[in-house]
Amino acid sequence: MTVVLKKFQLSTKPYCDIIDITQQVQSAVNESGVKDGIVNVSVAGSTGAISTTEYEPGIVKHDIENLLEDIIPYKKNYHHHKTWGDHNGAGHVRSFLIKTSQTFPFQNGKVILGTWQQIIFLELDEKSRSRTIYVQIIGE
Amino acid sequence: MTVVLKKFQLSTKPYCDIIDITQQVQSAVNESGVKDGIVNVSVAGSTGAISTTEYEPGIVKHDIENLLEDIIPYKKNYHHHKTWGDHNGAGHVRSFLIKTSQTFPFQNGKVILGTWQQIIFLELDEKSRSRTIYVQIIGE
Amino acid sequence: MTVVLKKFQLSTKPYCDIIDITQQVQSAVNESGVKDGIVNVSVAGSTGAISTTEYEPGIVKHDIENLLEDIIPYKKNYHHHKTWGDHNGAGHVRSFLIKTSQTFPFQNGKVILGTWQQIIFLELDEKSRSRTIYVQIIGE
Repeated sequence: MTVVLKKFQLSTKPYCDIIDITQQVQSAVNESGVKDGIVNVSVAGSTGAISTTEYEPGIVKHDIENLLEDIIPYKKNYHHHKTWGDHNGAGHVRSFLIKTSQTFPFQNGKVILGTWQQIIFLELDEKSRSRTIYVQIIGE
Repeated sequence: MTVVLKKFQLSTKPYCDIIDITQQVQSAVNESGVKDGIVNVSVAGSTGAISTTEYEPGIVKHDIENLLEDIIPYKKNYHHHKTWGDHNGAGHVRSFLIKTSQTFPFQNGKVILGTWQQIIFLELDEKSRSRTIYVQIIGE
Repeated sequence: MTVVLKKFQLSTKPYCDIIDITQQVQSAVNESGVKDGIVNVSVAGSTGAISTTEYEPGIVKHDIENLLEDIIPYKKNYHHHKTWGDHNGAGHVRSFLIKTSQTFPFQNGKVILGTWQQIIFLELDEKSRSRTIYVQIIGE
């Protein structure tokens, strides 16, 4: 049984940029040499998020953003803006709701996902960012 | 320290079928022989989800569905429908939001949950499905 | 590789009391002596939740609560209320959506979080509660 921490970088665009990171997570598991276990995928930050979806343009360019705009619109005067003079209140509340990490099983070196299911990072901030994604692998 | 992967099948109904899977997860931990650790429960797919609730009809037949219908209604013309000719856009967006996995601690062979808290699978697709639930157990 | 379970208690206030538990989680990792691994933070119950945010008053006193009141208001007649005569339907539905656990990586004894990111517990019930938070640490 062993623990292996991998990281990779993403250059993101603001306002609900959704990036397929399945291949990077799978590669991290491959490189770790661990065959069976779990992999925790996380972003260190409070305006990003991790989840999964079928990565096709209808969903990742429109449907997810439409949901988030309905319930947590960018153009709203969040109390967070008064505290710091920031303008990324929506990014914070979206990140809180979707959450910054998710954990997946893997077997024989393969992350267990559906055929049409990809792991995604969501940039929810109002600025382009350089993000570090942490991939913590535990198993044997 | 060891890793044990268990699976079980569910036959689901469409449109927010919520199934109590606590007993299957607890049984998987029992059968693994692992006493202390964590258990990751996941569905491989992008129109299902895993969470917890008090499993009583008011919540699982009405209150959760009412929330999801308010924010992600089934009868809406999702962009996903244009991409593939599918009709399950709401199922995808719901699954993205609730997420497809959750991880729980267990101690002395018992999954740590509240007295009124059950682990649930949500079928969010528009069709009946046969689902495989993966239970990855890590501990000693 | 080892497993260490830590617990701590919180005295909470009703209706979306949000408590920063980062220090308690970090202390649990420190006390475990485990250097690298993952830490699962959970509440046993169906009206609490775990997530992360920037812990500043604008967000934790207003913005999160405003979102939750928009989509899952406390003053609504949930079906759950008819089942048991309870009045905490909103607390259950909020807990279902946000979820009761989250898992984080740690490296060299330090939980990996953003500079402005704190781990939070949310009391979503309509009554003050004494809550046990479980911190399951796995690593080496």
